[in-house]
Amino acid sequence: MTATISAPQIKAIIAASSHADLIALMEEGFINYAAGKVVVPPVGYLPFNNPPGDVHIKYGYIKGDPYYVIKIASGFYNNPAMGLNSSNGMMLLFSQQTGEPLAVMLDEGYLTDIRTAVAGAVAARHLAPAQVDCIGIVGTGLQARLQLTYLQTVTTCRKVLIWGRSMEKAAALASDTTLGGFEITPTSDLTTLVRRSQLIVTTTPSREVLIKAQDVQPGTHITAMGADAEGKRELDPGILAKADRVVADSIAQCVDHGECHYAVKDALLPESKIMALGNVIANPALRRTAASQITVADLTGVAIQDIQITRFVYEQI
Amino acid sequence: MTATISAPQIKAIIAASSHADLIALMEEGFINYAAGKVVVPPVGYLPFNNPPGDVHIKYGYIKGDPYYVIKIASGFYNNPAMGLNSSNGMMLLFSQQTGEPLAVMLDEGYLTDIRTAVAGAVAARHLAPAQVDCIGIVGTGLQARLQLTYLQTVTTCRKVLIWGRSMEKAAALASDTTLGGFEITPTSDLTTLVRRSQLIVTTTPSREVLIKAQDVQPGTHITAMGADAEGKRELDPGILAKADRVVADSIAQCVDHGECHYAVKDALLPESKIMALGNVIANPALRRTAASQITVADLTGVAIQDIQITRFVYEQI
Repeated sequence: MTATISAPQIKAIIAASSHADLIALMEEGFINYAAGKVVVPPVGYLPFNNPPGDVHIKYGYIKGDPYYVIKIASGFYNNPAMGLNSSNGMMLLFSQQTGEPLAVMLDEGYLTDIRTAVAGAVAARHLAPAQVDCIGIVGTGLQARLQLTYLQTVTTCRKVLIWGRSMEKAAALASDTTLGGFEITPTSDLTTLVRRSQLIVTTTPSREVLIKAQDVQPGTHITAMGADAEGKRELDPGILAKADRVVADSIAQCVDHGECHYAVKDALLPESKIMALGNVIANPALRRTAASQITVADLTGVAIQDIQITRFVYEQI
Repeated sequence: MTATISAPQIKAIIAASSHADLIALMEEGFINYAAGKVVVPPVGYLPFNNPPGDVHIKYGYIKGDPYYVIKIASGFYNNPAMGLNSSNGMMLLFSQQTGEPLAVMLDEGYLTDIRTAVAGAVAARHLAPAQVDCIGIVGTGLQARLQLTYLQTVTTCRKVLIWGRSMEKAAALASDTTLGGFEITPTSDLTTLVRRSQLIVTTTPSREVLIKAQDVQPGTHITAMGADAEGKRELDPGILAKADRVVADSIAQCVDHGECHYAVKDALLPESKIMALGNVIANPALRRTAASQITVADLTGVAIQDIQITRFVYEQI
């Protein structure tokens, strides 16, 4: 029997779920991925010209798991002019024993947003300094809000600076009542945000450097998740050069099109210095060893996150 | 709104549908495909070892069409021991304008069987001689039965010889009451079947040559659809060498892993001699020009067939 789960049902399940459970499941996923226990073939890609759009098909499984997962994620860029989201798609869960389809989750891209936010919390949990006096959020979109939602579980800091190209949007996020636990201050001064924050999360689709190396202070952790395709970037490669730890969700993928790409290409960062997030989770000795160190997590998004979030929702129904 | 359509619903729609409509839609698909109007990226592949299985993800669209389609087709080879079909999967139909999912068809592989059978009828319609006194069916599985079902629309011949490795299965098919229009005789003598039939359809998973070149008489058309992966073959390559017309659903795919593969590799058939099925449909001048000619259709299965059968079902609901 194949369950069909609507977007409102999925949102209700996620809203009722323990953040700690989601974080633990995502950690387990990254550990399996770094240990080579996850089969993830190359992403399928279907481009459209008229109207412009593209579809990505990501799929894979953990060896020995009960499930395999296929994610279909589309972006159609004329949608907003019609009052629709650019993003759409679904998550499909199948039995790894028989191929039987177990669930069709019509999530419209929502679970990708959630698994991305949960990965941010995972990175902060294992890499941020113990003492965080200010969180800096770069970007004002949906992911900025979701990052804060899940960071609540992994840090006690409730003071937030938020920067975006639009002060209006930054102000709107600062007054978002769903983020009631935080004291959020919008700012137009990105340099000050970077200098004051010990935990910085970048969430923009920028194609230019936003954060300069000279502004990053000792004792800072940065999670960069905006760069998820060729040409996107948020960090000065000098930040990765001076960082004590550079951690990637997928080393190959981050070198291909994450923040690591530019740093490796410019010979500022030897690829051998990059550590897999799953290995850092599995082995606490790989984390920061001093409060004054600088750490960077480069997150481009990997199919193991889709596998884990999809099985999580399935196991709640 | 995304429609979810169950296997029984899909089977009822197909059972109530005009064969002529299905054939016309498939012809239109092949014409578009041969004319370069179909975007079909490489097939996605996900292999499993324990238990053994694989998943193929085929996807694409006709430029300017309202839809795009993704097919997920799995084979898990220990399933029959558990009383389950090896095959499973689904067809997904999306808007090419917005990416919105329009339909999830939980067809369990059924629509692939149907589109394969309809393609056989298309090939026979355009390539078989006008006068067919006997149809020869090689193989006794589901596809053998479905081929006959759809051939009824494109030939007036009702006399059938059927051969399989198991005479028991051949006899069972001969007495299948759903094929009431045909007078079917099972035979253990494949040579006689080949010599007496003017329209032969091969439907087996054979990895060895079944039909010898010396047995194929002038005035014969053969549709070979068993070879759909590397290593599978049913025809002596000498048949393609002596044929007056060799037609492929996809020239590239048939040279890669269809019957054409061996004939081209052994330099018995120049690749330039192979014609695309869509071009033969579009241009009757490319068909046989004499009743005595020998023609071969090599069908490996292409995503345009999945696109067409899926949109057909969607437009009936």
